[in-house]
Amino acid sequence: MKSFRKELHLKTGKRREIQNITGQVQEAVEESGIQEGMVLVNPMNVTSSIFINDDEEGLEKDFEILVEKLAPERPYSQYHHNVFEKNADAHLKRCIMGREAVCGLTKGRLDFGTWEQILYYDFDGKKDAKVLVKVIGE
Amino acid sequence: MKSFRKELHLKTGKRREIQNITGQVQEAVEESGIQEGMVLVNPMNVTSSIFINDDEEGLEKDFEILVEKLAPERPYSQYHHNVFEKNADAHLKRCIMGREAVCGLTKGRLDFGTWEQILYYDFDGKKDAKVLVKVIGE
Amino acid sequence: MKSFRKELHLKTGKRREIQNITGQVQEAVEESGIQEGMVLVNPMNVTSSIFINDDEEGLEKDFEILVEKLAPERPYSQYHHNVFEKNADAHLKRCIMGREAVCGLTKGRLDFGTWEQILYYDFDGKKDAKVLVKVIGE
Repeated sequence: MKSFRKELHLKTGKRREIQNITGQVQEAVEESGIQEGMVLVNPMNVTSSIFINDDEEGLEKDFEILVEKLAPERPYSQYHHNVFEKNADAHLKRCIMGREAVCGLTKGRLDFGTWEQILYYDFDGKKDAKVLVKVIGE
Repeated sequence: MKSFRKELHLKTGKRREIQNITGQVQEAVEESGIQEGMVLVNPMNVTSSIFINDDEEGLEKDFEILVEKLAPERPYSQYHHNVFEKNADAHLKRCIMGREAVCGLTKGRLDFGTWEQILYYDFDGKKDAKVLVKVIGE
Repeated sequence: MKSFRKELHLKTGKRREIQNITGQVQEAVEESGIQEGMVLVNPMNVTSSIFINDDEEGLEKDFEILVEKLAPERPYSQYHHNVFEKNADAHLKRCIMGREAVCGLTKGRLDFGTWEQILYYDFDGKKDAKVLVKVIGE
């Protein structure tokens, strides 16, 4: 069995921001030389999600409305966590949208359906962020 | 390390429908001949979820009420995605319920507790659907 | 490829309770002798979640408020599942918070960012619970 590890380095300009990292993950898979196996993709911070969905502009707005409806950013005072920080909502949004994606790897490619795209969703951005890509297989 | 890949082909008759695919996944595991490892199960479309829970009729209704409460199908006009399609709610429901399940494989069997069942939940059904089963191990 | 399996045995004193099991998972990894690979951590019951987030007291209260808002425990009569049991809300909360975590394993350690902690969240506690730790790699 072979394994390979890479950190993707991302920059976010807004508090909440979605970036499509499918290409970067596929590149990491190619660097690994692994043909058959699994790929784990997860953010190394706890206020972001990796999730797989369609990459479509209208839908991006719908995701934003959903997470703000279920775990609104404001008022900051509604959250017990917001003593020294103001990012409790980001921790909660990350719970709803999930942490990591595990993808199949077949013949050296992400084993995806037509519309599957790997999206990084930062809920407490304006920062440098790291995403772990771990590939195992042969 | 060995790997094995199979697509399950499902048909859904309703917009939202839950199917128990535990038996089909276990069959795929047996075809693989792999005894120890991990199994990834994920829908190849982006408007469905694979999740693991109890397979119980009352609970199925409760799941339906939950996803409709958090991300209602109608009115279609509430979603930015619904320009050419009417399935934005399905993309959102899939975020809440999750995309994939990763299962342990021990002595050739899904390493499950008593009540764990693998459920396919389509939120935009009336279609043919494919589910990827990827097994790695030895 | 090597594989290793361990069940963690937990006891919960309250209906809803969060326990940090990061240390126990790391111990299982060390027992396995595996240096590079992946670790699956999942509860063997279907009314709990394993999720990864910050382990902070205020946030724990915020998680509680979130899951009670989205899928309230009471009134029990609102759920179709609650015929012989009163734990439908626990099944739904588990859907929202997710079932399992898959973690990277690098140089014999959980490949985590600074704040990542593995949390077991029981939504129908006051019981003995088992959590599966499955490690594969080399």
